Amino acid sequence: MRSINVGILGFGTVSSGTVRILQENAAAITARVGANVQVKRVAVRDLSKPRDAELPASALTTNPEEITTDPDIAIVVELMGGVEPARSLISQAIAHGKSIVTANKEMVAKVGHELRQQAHDVGLDFLFEASVGGGIPVIATLSESLAGNRIKEIVGIVNGTTNYILTKMTTEGAAFGKVLAEAQALGYAEAEPSADVDGHDARYKIAILASLAFGTRVDAEAVTAEGIRHLSPRDIAVAGELGYRIKLLAVAQTAQNGIRVRVYPALLPLTHPLATVDGVFNAVFLRGDAVGDLTLIGRGAGALPTGSAVVGDIAACARNIVAGTTGRVPYSVAATDTPVLPSASAWSRYYARVRVLDRPKALATIATVFGDYGISIESVVQRAMPDEEAEIVWITHEGRESDVLAALTAIHALPVVRSVDAAIRVVA
Amino acid sequence: MRSINVGILGFGTVSSGTVRILQENAAAITARVGANVQVKRVAVRDLSKPRDAELPASALTTNPEEITTDPDIAIVVELMGGVEPARSLISQAIAHGKSIVTANKEMVAKVGHELRQQAHDVGLDFLFEASVGGGIPVIATLSESLAGNRIKEIVGIVNGTTNYILTKMTTEGAAFGKVLAEAQALGYAEAEPSADVDGHDARYKIAILASLAFGTRVDAEAVTAEGIRHLSPRDIAVAGELGYRIKLLAVAQTAQNGIRVRVYPALLPLTHPLATVDGVFNAVFLRGDAVGDLTLIGRGAGALPTGSAVVGDIAACARNIVAGTTGRVPYSVAATDTPVLPSASAWSRYYARVRVLDRPKALATIATVFGDYGISIESVVQRAMPDEEAEIVWITHEGRESDVLAALTAIHALPVVRSVDAAIRVVA
Repeated sequence: MRSINVGILGFGTVSSGTVRILQENAAAITARVGANVQVKRVAVRDLSKPRDAELPASALTTNPEEITTDPDIAIVVELMGGVEPARSLISQAIAHGKSIVTANKEMVAKVGHELRQQAHDVGLDFLFEASVGGGIPVIATLSESLAGNRIKEIVGIVNGTTNYILTKMTTEGAAFGKVLAEAQALGYAEAEPSADVDGHDARYKIAILASLAFGTRVDAEAVTAEGIRHLSPRDIAVAGELGYRIKLLAVAQTAQNGIRVRVYPALLPLTHPLATVDGVFNAVFLRGDAVGDLTLIGRGAGALPTGSAVVGDIAACARNIVAGTTGRVPYSVAATDTPVLPSASAWSRYYARVRVLDRPKALATIATVFGDYGISIESVVQRAMPDEEAEIVWITHEGRESDVLAALTAIHALPVVRSVDAAIRVVA
Repeated sequence: MRSINVGILGFGTVSSGTVRILQENAAAITARVGANVQVKRVAVRDLSKPRDAELPASALTTNPEEITTDPDIAIVVELMGGVEPARSLISQAIAHGKSIVTANKEMVAKVGHELRQQAHDVGLDFLFEASVGGGIPVIATLSESLAGNRIKEIVGIVNGTTNYILTKMTTEGAAFGKVLAEAQALGYAEAEPSADVDGHDARYKIAILASLAFGTRVDAEAVTAEGIRHLSPRDIAVAGELGYRIKLLAVAQTAQNGIRVRVYPALLPLTHPLATVDGVFNAVFLRGDAVGDLTLIGRGAGALPTGSAVVGDIAACARNIVAGTTGRVPYSVAATDTPVLPSASAWSRYYARVRVLDRPKALATIATVFGDYGISIESVVQRAMPDEEAEIVWITHEGRESDVLAALTAIHALPVVRSVDAAIRVVA
């Protein structure tokens, strides 16, 4: 039986998981692929560091070019993260005839198009299932299974750290800062948490999904991101009473004359398939014109789940190598050039929590302002609070987001209003 | 640009959906595939019958061999249903060099292995995504994305008719017969409902999934099936009070020395990802050694959702034809010959509802019998009923199924017991 050699750039968590899966499930993978797939070499920074997977010392190198230029290696797996030197090494590997598998969302979001094109031009594969949603097969589903669909909408929970934090805030009623500190102590959140909690990680991922779904190049910089730092346990509790959960969503939608691609926290009704996706689980909800609603839920991170996606891509590459048909799926992402529309022109339902002086007509005064801005109200709940205050929680019907926010600015300026404590989108 | 001609056998619901998708999304499909994919001919029984998709009259034929032997047709899509003449026509089409796409679960479950082998031997594709779960990409996920995993368990809601009936019984508290009659009036259930409500349809589907997941040939006849006719609104209500939903599940699991593949109704805790999959939606829960838990939820039937799966397979075939690599995914299902174990030796948790005379020690007497058979109890709820009766609802810990059923037979014979009204498995 033929052997196919794999070289891996980087030996962190996902790389260790990948090596272990290829070793432990070698017999099954060989039967499914029709070739022996084996790890020939792994590029590391520090040869002496202990690893979670066993390889002979001779398989490790500190020189990644020993992988990208090795004529015996057919598949290069890039698991370094970051744009450089990943991009240059991948480009070099393609120039040396290697197919590419990567889990690097930042690199794929920022420069994936040029590398995909380079690979496609010479008939090689560039696969990146592991860059979004860990073990969830969302890239394959969009690229292959849904090839007959026009995608209307993607709604994803694609960041496990924030989903873990929001789940803890929901179950424990704890504040963001406290839960973040716990998550950092457990290793679920980074010491510098901004990439997760401010939505940048999710931005890369939804840019990748939107590019595939809409056949256009979505620049991650054009994706607006709101994070979860400002969410309070009070809003999570009130949303819960009203039958909603708050999740950090990555959303891509078709609109007139373009698409909208954004990251924001939102209230989801409990009947929504993403509402009960908790903890470190990720999920992607897709709406296609033919398939209808499709939801994929699974582990969004970790050595073995993400390694599962990497090995799935390695198997796909290996099958293509055996069949002599790398580069089989055409690169159609640049097919159209659909503009990413600005956020302000979007329409959404909103949840708004307003603290007022407990006076007659406070509610009516605020409702009038909403009306002045053309925002109609779906539901409203007022309750008395200490110190002669009251809390009024509004759920609006769909309105232009810029109008809702302008109305809330005007409401904030009303004498009867103490503060506008929250304004969070609501997903139907 | 190259054109690839498709011929379709059958022009029912799914066929009409397939034709419409190929027509309406032609531009997107062409960009994704790298070829024009067009329907050249459709075989029908009755030329004069009105259809939900538009094709020129010249494209219709009553002679399927005009499709299976036409040298201009590269892909034959079989949407007739049933084993014959589908099997013979597919075999003829493969002999004439055509790749095959089918949605025919009964044919795939019963004779799919021989046709896959025939196609593989001559380097052609035999794809059947649409045979299980409508638009849900479960076959592709098992065959490709999870190629690195050893699958431990599959739990599916794969029959929309029974899920619709159980959902209605749950929301309306109505009896099986009443809801079935309504479903028949609405066209959601057949006049002869046995294939759905007795679990045979689900049996074919789980046999297909188990064959793929475990790399062995699972004979649909070896799959035991219990249906939903015996489920009462009382059990659905009691299960609901205890935090469970009752669903008809298709289950395939690895076990010592073999696998278990079965269809049965079961209680699912509300926290299980399948518990809230309602109405005509289908879902498949997969557990792999690397990916962990993965859940796919979508529309399990209908012209466009199932057509989406058919067109996804057509696109995969067309990409392989463009790349000159049909038959790219090896046929590895016959790789092992794992026995399907008998049901009686399985272990399960059980829900049992027992009606007793409201006497002291009724509960203790029954508990003693469970203990005699080595079955330990997780929870028990007794409540008084009219006519000096009481209802006792037991949830057992995991026990050998044959022991649980023997214990219930002994319990039924106790003088204090009026009847054992229900014994339903509970999924953790």
